[in-house]
Amino acid sequence: MIELTQFLDAVRRDVDSTLDLLVPRADVEPRRLHEAIRWSLFAGGKRIRPAILMAVGRTFGAADEQLARTSAAIEMIHTYSLIHDDLPSMDDDDMRRGKATCHKQFGEATAILAGDVLQTLAFKTIAEDENLTPEIRIKLISIIAAAAGTPTGMVAGQQLDLDAEGQTLSIGEIEQIHRGKTGAIISASALAGAIIGGSSDDEQSSIEKYASKLGLLFQITDDLLDVTQQSETLGKTAGKDAAAEKATYPSHFGVEQTGIMAKYIHNEACDALLSIKCDTKLLNMLADFIVNRTR
Amino acid sequence: MIELTQFLDAVRRDVDSTLDLLVPRADVEPRRLHEAIRWSLFAGGKRIRPAILMAVGRTFGAADEQLARTSAAIEMIHTYSLIHDDLPSMDDDDMRRGKATCHKQFGEATAILAGDVLQTLAFKTIAEDENLTPEIRIKLISIIAAAAGTPTGMVAGQQLDLDAEGQTLSIGEIEQIHRGKTGAIISASALAGAIIGGSSDDEQSSIEKYASKLGLLFQITDDLLDVTQQSETLGKTAGKDAAAEKATYPSHFGVEQTGIMAKYIHNEACDALLSIKCDTKLLNMLADFIVNRTR
Repeated sequence: MIELTQFLDAVRRDVDSTLDLLVPRADVEPRRLHEAIRWSLFAGGKRIRPAILMAVGRTFGAADEQLARTSAAIEMIHTYSLIHDDLPSMDDDDMRRGKATCHKQFGEATAILAGDVLQTLAFKTIAEDENLTPEIRIKLISIIAAAAGTPTGMVAGQQLDLDAEGQTLSIGEIEQIHRGKTGAIISASALAGAIIGGSSDDEQSSIEKYASKLGLLFQITDDLLDVTQQSETLGKTAGKDAAAEKATYPSHFGVEQTGIMAKYIHNEACDALLSIKCDTKLLNMLADFIVNRTR
Repeated sequence: MIELTQFLDAVRRDVDSTLDLLVPRADVEPRRLHEAIRWSLFAGGKRIRPAILMAVGRTFGAADEQLARTSAAIEMIHTYSLIHDDLPSMDDDDMRRGKATCHKQFGEATAILAGDVLQTLAFKTIAEDENLTPEIRIKLISIIAAAAGTPTGMVAGQQLDLDAEGQTLSIGEIEQIHRGKTGAIISASALAGAIIGGSSDDEQSSIEKYASKLGLLFQITDDLLDVTQQSETLGKTAGKDAAAEKATYPSHFGVEQTGIMAKYIHNEACDALLSIKCDTKLLNMLADFIVNRTR
């Protein structure tokens, strides 16, 4: 996995420097807002979604500079969702990536605004990306907005998750929540990379299948880590799902069965890549990385 | 003013029907989210921003169907900002447009998500507008995102407003807050109409001057109404600014002086239209309407 670690490190460095250029400096007014944005954006996130976008984009031959802004935009949307998810009226979480959550550090009002404006900035970033044609930019905005929105995107998934607290869900209902909350943006990241890389419709549908399995795998391993790991390792509060009586794979199937399912879904993700003629080694390694992750 | 009333009624009808098509129905899951969005979106708003966009667009010869989606998108962004502004950690308001605020009716978590997803849907709506070229769509997304964002847009203005509570501000600081909170989106509405109408750079800069005066006028009359009107007339809680010790024109200059300033700014808005060769009667009437408004 040495090559993948290098790739992930490089993505993290590139995304961080792009984000740093795109977000107002902390000494620009309103400073409190910009400090709050930067607090959450540069809190040591793993940049998995940009990595997926960059990996798929490179697979189809896109240049890194064509992928940079959209990767940064996806990470802005992800970070906005984390900031709002952590709020007292939502998951009420005090710790994230080993640091105080945004509202703990800056207060609720500023945290709400920081999340709001990160979403705004994400769409602005794509609209103003001069390395892409206007046609591609509007297509990217359209698919990313669908994935972040409703009725099948991230916010819809969060609402379903809220509605489900304390209820016993079927596995189909659990999957629906996962597809919205985590899967939609992961799929959009992959599809964005494929679009920027100029892939064919067939290739895009293979990538969508790969990404939907990858997204499910990501959520399942997230749920598993919540059960099996300590807070220090995760950098966020462990055991939250059980405490909130949230519907998860481990709560439904038990830890051991869930681990077996993860391996099965990993295989499905890799199988989806078989019909693609380009070299998909990087994409296979990403799937391996996610099934084996420990934080 | 009979013609303007007809124009505003027609805009309201058109925007409402466009919004109704664009927002998922209340019986689509997650229902609670879609009910909350519709609760706030169809609460009887005046649709001033769409009216400004439509009026400017028509002035430069744009067809109504080229203006419809962007008008709806602007109203979505305005409504998202109202929902988040009303939250307990922000202005903590229970009443809006004569109804319970979103979080009062649906809870804080759902209100946060409803606001979030309205913003998402706004940008998606413009990105997918097949009545406009891709070039115009990305330009609209770019200017509207700048106006909704930071460091000079709506969210920046809201943060400055938060930071200023309980402080005595200079008139320059008050204006800066106004320009962000209200002025930026009003200016973007006007500029969007001018861009869709294919106006020249000179015409766009005249429209920007007109709109910046109109935005200031709108905020000043809003502050005046907060002091002089009853809650029933306004459809929202009156006297909130004074209770929160917010910096406003009337708190700084007194009601009478503020009324005189409003007339002066109204004249400046109309003067900015003099260099435009098209018929600007509708835009003059809009400025008259705002200076004379009673709610």
